[in-house]
Amino acid sequence: MGAPVTIALDAMGGDHGPSVVIPAAAIALVRHPQLRFIIVGDEAQIGPELAAHPALAEKSEVVHTDVAITMDAKPSQALRRGRWKSSMWLAIEAVRDGRAHAVVSAGNTGALMVMAKFCLKTIKGIDRPAIAAIWPTIDAECIVLDVGANVGADSRQLVEFALMGAGMARALFGMAEPSVGLLNIGVEEVKGVEEIKAAAAVLKEAPLPIRYHGFIEGDDIGRGTVDVVVTDGFTGNIALKTAEGTAKQIGEYLRAAMGRSLLARLGAVLAQGAFRALKEKMDPRQLNGGIFLGLNGIVVKSHGGTDATGFACAVDLAYEMASSGVVKRLGSDLAHFHTKLELEGAA
Amino acid sequence: MGAPVTIALDAMGGDHGPSVVIPAAAIALVRHPQLRFIIVGDEAQIGPELAAHPALAEKSEVVHTDVAITMDAKPSQALRRGRWKSSMWLAIEAVRDGRAHAVVSAGNTGALMVMAKFCLKTIKGIDRPAIAAIWPTIDAECIVLDVGANVGADSRQLVEFALMGAGMARALFGMAEPSVGLLNIGVEEVKGVEEIKAAAAVLKEAPLPIRYHGFIEGDDIGRGTVDVVVTDGFTGNIALKTAEGTAKQIGEYLRAAMGRSLLARLGAVLAQGAFRALKEKMDPRQLNGGIFLGLNGIVVKSHGGTDATGFACAVDLAYEMASSGVVKRLGSDLAHFHTKLELEGAA
Repeated sequence: MGAPVTIALDAMGGDHGPSVVIPAAAIALVRHPQLRFIIVGDEAQIGPELAAHPALAEKSEVVHTDVAITMDAKPSQALRRGRWKSSMWLAIEAVRDGRAHAVVSAGNTGALMVMAKFCLKTIKGIDRPAIAAIWPTIDAECIVLDVGANVGADSRQLVEFALMGAGMARALFGMAEPSVGLLNIGVEEVKGVEEIKAAAAVLKEAPLPIRYHGFIEGDDIGRGTVDVVVTDGFTGNIALKTAEGTAKQIGEYLRAAMGRSLLARLGAVLAQGAFRALKEKMDPRQLNGGIFLGLNGIVVKSHGGTDATGFACAVDLAYEMASSGVVKRLGSDLAHFHTKLELEGAA
Repeated sequence: MGAPVTIALDAMGGDHGPSVVIPAAAIALVRHPQLRFIIVGDEAQIGPELAAHPALAEKSEVVHTDVAITMDAKPSQALRRGRWKSSMWLAIEAVRDGRAHAVVSAGNTGALMVMAKFCLKTIKGIDRPAIAAIWPTIDAECIVLDVGANVGADSRQLVEFALMGAGMARALFGMAEPSVGLLNIGVEEVKGVEEIKAAAAVLKEAPLPIRYHGFIEGDDIGRGTVDVVVTDGFTGNIALKTAEGTAKQIGEYLRAAMGRSLLARLGAVLAQGAFRALKEKMDPRQLNGGIFLGLNGIVVKSHGGTDATGFACAVDLAYEMASSGVVKRLGSDLAHFHTKLELEGAA
């Protein structure tokens, strides 16, 4: 058993608050007994939930506040009004002050990003943080970023996304040299994606332990062509949601096809173990959690509407990120990269 | 049986040339006996294929040329060198000259777009043509554009895409008032998508028979939230290919799950009718064909690597587009729209 890892939880975030967050923490604790929690939110709501999970209560510290950021709050307003006192801010602060290794919130994405950026600051050498998603592929998983922190990205930012994604792949997947692809379109004589072309030119020569693959197209993501897919936040967000929508759609087709005839229904009964495995593989809760990369601390955003199973996966992810020392790693990767670039620039 | 509809076929386009194009035309002719064909390409290759399909031969005129645009030709070079003589150009020309109602090619997309634009010209009031795709949804189909003709789009172009997509939905799906959505991301306080916001402002007030739905997200496409999805060519292309990749990936999961145990294999045998129906529903050949919208003529681009079944679907699509009178309809829609805007601007 490794050293204790402390996760700060924004208990008031998401659609369901403590009634999802607390049972989720209990699930994660069974999987990772070295976990400790700082649970931030309304004690009156947290207390009864925690009473039902004595093993969790023993490993948790509750920090009371009655301020919560609503799901529809404007990020800038949330920062102005909710700062210092909200459960979201106090949970992030625990990471800044070194009391927690990571923070997990199912709250308002925009508010979480603004507060996390303000409180933790970006890693030296990083222009803008990105949100990374873990994307299932045919045989394994890949990392896709940015999936929505920013709209648009210039070439420097795309290069930074590549470095951050590769650092995460090294830490999380234990890879020495992750392959990196730039998401692009395959139409001949493409005009107007100068940022992507410029980023490609830099990545080809980057003095870093990444294997630059080149341009990839949308269907390469799920195929697992590369370990890290780099794109701007607008495109990444639309690709992610389109894939989620397609998966749901095919699930519907399958259900309809299997109910159409008696033979098919009988077949479905016999194959129910296989269908269960498939359902689990396609379960979006299994890969719940967007990771904010580029900050001096680990911030995991869970889907707002998820249940305890889904939120527990986000806690697992925060645990794995914290255990892997990815933030330190990213810091030294970036310092190395920028030093090299400056030396080359000076040469 | 309706009036004859003549389709010009670029017999030399795609990876397989006449060996796919001719059998495909034969398949389409069975489904639509009012079809006539102008088949453009190398007579020495077309002749033997046509001999195997006497019913098709009877309805076809062959135009010989020994110039073909290669799949890797640069569009601008293709236009300079392949103009006047290539099978692609001559097939497009048949539409311009009124000898054919539509053209289908599986050739080089970029070259086809450049030549079609040069030969047919854009409809009055259209800035740039777009490529539209028919996208399967849970219950029906929707139209997504642009899926790759352009990179980026300003607000005026997005509005034009909306008008063209709606015109196509009215013509192809027989809808009086198609609903239109602008693809966007749901992150709060989004910055930098000024073009989309400006397009939304125009569409809300547009004096046209469309029902403007508002912003939609990636997962709304397959859900069928709207009849027409409007986006720029970069995002649309990546969304389309990501969805195709996800469908393939889930097909792989399903195959793997169904082979894992004896019971599952037995279940799969019993349910094979259902699986066949599902496979057909997910078959990308069934929706093969990108439609170039905004030109004075109908141009359908088939996948380059497709087989006769797939190419026949592209011919079906060209037939339906030609029968629906969509080009005329678009022209009058646009004239109406621009007149209205000018009147409003003058008021």
